[in-house]
Amino acid sequence: MPAPAVNLRDFEALARERLDARALGYYAGGAGDEVTLRENETAWARRTLRYRVLVDVGVRRLDAEVLGQRVSMPVLVAPTAFHGLAHPEAERATARAAAAAGTVMILSTLSGTPVEDVVAAAGGPAGGPVWFQLYVYKDRGATAALVRRVEAAGCRALVLTVDAPVLGRRERDVRNAFRLPDGMSVANLVPAGLAELPAAARESGLAAYFAAQLDASVTWNDVAWLRSVTRLPVLLKGIVRADDAMRALNHGAAGVVVSNHGGRQLDGAPATADVLPEIAAALDGRGTLLVDGGVRRGADVVKALALGAHGVLLGRPILWGLAVDGEAGVARVLDLMRAELDLAMALCGCPDLAAVTPDLVR
Amino acid sequence: MPAPAVNLRDFEALARERLDARALGYYAGGAGDEVTLRENETAWARRTLRYRVLVDVGVRRLDAEVLGQRVSMPVLVAPTAFHGLAHPEAERATARAAAAAGTVMILSTLSGTPVEDVVAAAGGPAGGPVWFQLYVYKDRGATAALVRRVEAAGCRALVLTVDAPVLGRRERDVRNAFRLPDGMSVANLVPAGLAELPAAARESGLAAYFAAQLDASVTWNDVAWLRSVTRLPVLLKGIVRADDAMRALNHGAAGVVVSNHGGRQLDGAPATADVLPEIAAALDGRGTLLVDGGVRRGADVVKALALGAHGVLLGRPILWGLAVDGEAGVARVLDLMRAELDLAMALCGCPDLAAVTPDLVR
Amino acid sequence: MPAPAVNLRDFEALARERLDARALGYYAGGAGDEVTLRENETAWARRTLRYRVLVDVGVRRLDAEVLGQRVSMPVLVAPTAFHGLAHPEAERATARAAAAAGTVMILSTLSGTPVEDVVAAAGGPAGGPVWFQLYVYKDRGATAALVRRVEAAGCRALVLTVDAPVLGRRERDVRNAFRLPDGMSVANLVPAGLAELPAAARESGLAAYFAAQLDASVTWNDVAWLRSVTRLPVLLKGIVRADDAMRALNHGAAGVVVSNHGGRQLDGAPATADVLPEIAAALDGRGTLLVDGGVRRGADVVKALALGAHGVLLGRPILWGLAVDGEAGVARVLDLMRAELDLAMALCGCPDLAAVTPDLVR
Amino acid sequence: MPAPAVNLRDFEALARERLDARALGYYAGGAGDEVTLRENETAWARRTLRYRVLVDVGVRRLDAEVLGQRVSMPVLVAPTAFHGLAHPEAERATARAAAAAGTVMILSTLSGTPVEDVVAAAGGPAGGPVWFQLYVYKDRGATAALVRRVEAAGCRALVLTVDAPVLGRRERDVRNAFRLPDGMSVANLVPAGLAELPAAARESGLAAYFAAQLDASVTWNDVAWLRSVTRLPVLLKGIVRADDAMRALNHGAAGVVVSNHGGRQLDGAPATADVLPEIAAALDGRGTLLVDGGVRRGADVVKALALGAHGVLLGRPILWGLAVDGEAGVARVLDLMRAELDLAMALCGCPDLAAVTPDLVR
Repeated sequence: MPAPAVNLRDFEALARERLDARALGYYAGGAGDEVTLRENETAWARRTLRYRVLVDVGVRRLDAEVLGQRVSMPVLVAPTAFHGLAHPEAERATARAAAAAGTVMILSTLSGTPVEDVVAAAGGPAGGPVWFQLYVYKDRGATAALVRRVEAAGCRALVLTVDAPVLGRRERDVRNAFRLPDGMSVANLVPAGLAELPAAARESGLAAYFAAQLDASVTWNDVAWLRSVTRLPVLLKGIVRADDAMRALNHGAAGVVVSNHGGRQLDGAPATADVLPEIAAALDGRGTLLVDGGVRRGADVVKALALGAHGVLLGRPILWGLAVDGEAGVARVLDLMRAELDLAMALCGCPDLAAVTPDLVR
Repeated sequence: MPAPAVNLRDFEALARERLDARALGYYAGGAGDEVTLRENETAWARRTLRYRVLVDVGVRRLDAEVLGQRVSMPVLVAPTAFHGLAHPEAERATARAAAAAGTVMILSTLSGTPVEDVVAAAGGPAGGPVWFQLYVYKDRGATAALVRRVEAAGCRALVLTVDAPVLGRRERDVRNAFRLPDGMSVANLVPAGLAELPAAARESGLAAYFAAQLDASVTWNDVAWLRSVTRLPVLLKGIVRADDAMRALNHGAAGVVVSNHGGRQLDGAPATADVLPEIAAALDGRGTLLVDGGVRRGADVVKALALGAHGVLLGRPILWGLAVDGEAGVARVLDLMRAELDLAMALCGCPDLAAVTPDLVR
Repeated sequence: MPAPAVNLRDFEALARERLDARALGYYAGGAGDEVTLRENETAWARRTLRYRVLVDVGVRRLDAEVLGQRVSMPVLVAPTAFHGLAHPEAERATARAAAAAGTVMILSTLSGTPVEDVVAAAGGPAGGPVWFQLYVYKDRGATAALVRRVEAAGCRALVLTVDAPVLGRRERDVRNAFRLPDGMSVANLVPAGLAELPAAARESGLAAYFAAQLDASVTWNDVAWLRSVTRLPVLLKGIVRADDAMRALNHGAAGVVVSNHGGRQLDGAPATADVLPEIAAALDGRGTLLVDGGVRRGADVVKALALGAHGVLLGRPILWGLAVDGEAGVARVLDLMRAELDLAMALCGCPDLAAVTPDLVR
Repeated sequence: MPAPAVNLRDFEALARERLDARALGYYAGGAGDEVTLRENETAWARRTLRYRVLVDVGVRRLDAEVLGQRVSMPVLVAPTAFHGLAHPEAERATARAAAAAGTVMILSTLSGTPVEDVVAAAGGPAGGPVWFQLYVYKDRGATAALVRRVEAAGCRALVLTVDAPVLGRRERDVRNAFRLPDGMSVANLVPAGLAELPAAARESGLAAYFAAQLDASVTWNDVAWLRSVTRLPVLLKGIVRADDAMRALNHGAAGVVVSNHGGRQLDGAPATADVLPEIAAALDGRGTLLVDGGVRRGADVVKALALGAHGVLLGRPILWGLAVDGEAGVARVLDLMRAELDLAMALCGCPDLAAVTPDLVR
């Protein structure tokens, strides 16, 4: 019997044994030389925490409010594609675990599970919050139809990915000729009038699909358009510049996710921990500020909060948990993060999130 | 016959061969990814010593006064837990070696040897100085009883650990299911009305014990309370911030130990060598300033002094010496440090500690 | 069947298998300890790209004008010696691939193929642009004759190498006793009255040749002399200082190539990415500014442009492509670079080269 | 037949095969963890050379004047102990090679060859310059006698080592129980009334000897005393601080050697390349400024000169040459350095030493 996973890296090691090579490459890989992929992790580790002592931390509260929704901790489930590659219960399992953990699941557009089923798995419209990550397609009508569908399904926010006008080149996928297994499809797109992912394509099938369907001409004006077709708050995900973050708010976004797509789009993009401070300084408290990329430890979350984020998104580790043990694996991953965050806050002298102030990081 | 130990790293290598895996993991390990554990050592090595030449160093004096007590060198024995894991003579052996070396032994609360026996081993109340490291327990009456007991036993100072409102997560101990061997107990606590360490517990028994017994609600006010129940000087150990160091003195502490608990509490805490200068600058000569973490060479001690410390605490190397050869091993470790410190001072042009000035470090 | 090359590093790996040890050492090696060779590559990787989002990149244009000539992308073929070591079609194959790719081939003086044949392979004087890299020989008359010949052949610019008054010591060549294979000769020099490379020589035959033929006394005045014997624009290649770049323009050069000769001349020279910004600042838009050294990714090209270059030269990767598959291999290398550059620009929010501004790099 | 040595590192590799373990450890080792030993080398490599182009370097001159003596290049032979461990011809072989190379040999006090024989090997008092490195012994009369003897022998300068009031602890020697082979003695000391090195001693015999004979009480006043007993210029070797360098000149020294004793005394001392600039700035042209430590390449010499030194001393590489092939090996080492220096100067656009200006380094 293997030893139980003690931390998120253990989950990664276990998942590597269980996933087939194509799925593992798709989940684990990044663009190009994977410099940004690695830097995302090490940038958190380079920061130190100047903890405070002799603060009463007998009672800790990790709960937060994000986009007006209460979460039990400032750790949300990042949108990641095709959970069905990891486990037959796919996005349903993840949604159940996220809801049980009291946090948000952000459902990827590239999901094999209909959005209605995911919301149902999270407990229905009044259950755990589900947000929907989307792209703007060349077919704006179909995009609007998709938005209406996810609204109707009970999603509570939209997360517009802005760092992927074209798909990054993930060389592991090129080498593996990555494609979806037979029978897996992009469930939410076809009914909206959007094309199905092709069964096979030269190099990465996904890249071909992106080139054909997604609109590389999307601009800031389309943010206004998106807002005009939804009543949901819109976050822009994939921002690494202070000026773009300001522009996002000025164009009506409810906030931004500082992200480089987990190192999967532009290799050479800065680590998110390195750009977060200047973006937080520019926003100066306006809008919702989230961050993802390389978060593997509870102490990383404290660092992100101290650098100005309201919360973090957890991506690959959720997939490792899912691959290892389905819903229970995701639940364990979230439990580990909660326990580590609770411990790190206690040791930093922070009884609640408000106590996580910039002087803690350096 | 193995070659004799030439330096402290040799002692570590020899001790690794002798200790069982659980004890070794407990002694050697740090929290989380052990980043702080490693940084503690490398931060000393990053500093260079701009030695002075043509100073008369024909006679060197290493003796110092710490908390009004004369020590033969500014290297004290740090409080470390459960010496019985290393040698049957346990804390007695360490105390005998420290006293013979003319320096302070700081006895850990987590000792299997009664404090009276440790003081006796050090030569009694008029012998080698013994200080006592303690926590504030939920049961303040029992905490006060413990303080009275160690006072009565002849301890000459209290070292209050402030970086452990909860226990850090040392993953080696979790993996090893660390627990004390049968028959070993926390000898000083039960008579004071405090609970015995449980024989077994989920993950680390120690963590469970801490959560149950120690008070995570302790604040600066409790420093005043502690002072009200003792006539001994109180040092606060585990400080990494200049503002906390100032607060310590303002609340009546006699000084502080710059420490991150040897990297065993908050992984991501800064290396002590990196924060020592700003703390020294803030204190500006007020109070006693000690430091621990990663000191492995005599030159590290010179660096610590030049950065403003009055002395250093030596932790793990003492345990390596104890594991290798009991009292004689500890004595040899202290002898090596003394010889290295003497040599480093001579080569820096410092005939005594007063000559170790800030311009030596960079 | 080996997997197809996914990036330029794959081409390098494949080429290493095909080249004999002497040729490989000659192509891959650098001077001395090869510190500059390695730094050239890592200096690009150290820079990050602060990409912009929500810019319309539906249509991208990579074309540029360099020295008044239109190229399909700002990636030119650097002058490298003796393509015949890699493939029997030698410089002809490279020229065909460069012309087909719509970019400049810079022909090295140290070519086994007559310049007329290279221009013909590129499509003749009205075909793909060919520039000629040259040295100033002790025999100025012969140098002038060489210039007249390359002009007559249809070359459109001269690239004067200024970082090689004497030949760098490439220890791989010394160890391999590098010399040209029998039958290979420096085709363009003998008719101009210049000496043939000797068949054998102590240590590197090339070094002996340089010492005998090239003029280490060349100064800025010789730039004026060179301009007096040609109507072609002259670039100075091998500059790493802002003052030298200014001097180049002041002496009538049309521009400079920031280069350290691919780490083959002075080991210890700075990485080109590290000196490019100050040179760009000094030139402030005057003259043509190119750079080479360590460019291996499309994102490196974007970084170079953002740091102020008008284009980059690609050296060793062209040779790897040539060794792997002749003209088709070079074409594939250029295709890969174009695709990577196109992708990196799209992901940076740059629809054309004018959009690549300094704020992208950091 | 092994390949001939192409650079100084090759000589080191060859010497490692030939020397017995004790001699190799004594030559190669440094103090403590050998951090300074390694840093000495890497500090040169961290500096880059901003070479100048289009300077007439058709004729290069490497000759320099050091302490009023003409040398063919600014590379001197550092004082190193006991050449007899490397070759039976010992210091005689080194002196012959140095004289033939037109440079200074600095003879170590710890020589097994009488100083008169070394001067004779260098060509006599009018031959190659020999300087003498010395310590101040407790017995000042004997020290003065030694000075008179080396003066009479024809030495032209004294190099007083000031970084060794006590001997550094070189753990390789401790582990090897380093001692001189039978029959080797400190030839210049006994006639002067100084003690012979003991045949055996605890740990390093050398350390015991130092402790017994050398005077750790030497101060700046003793520099005046030394000057009073000699008409030779005195250099102080082992200085790493600007204030000490100024003090040296103010006490009548003719100059200083920036040195940390090759990393053999205080481990943790700064790399000499790192402190050279501030010392050069403080001296501002006054006195002779030499440097040693980690010089392995001609480009390192250019860097040293650009940082303000008048010349460098070469230590261990001389011993490697001596071990490999006696006088011829030392000659080849000096030839390699000369060729590398000549090449580096040519590539930096420096026809002579005066052209090596501070703007070259960064």
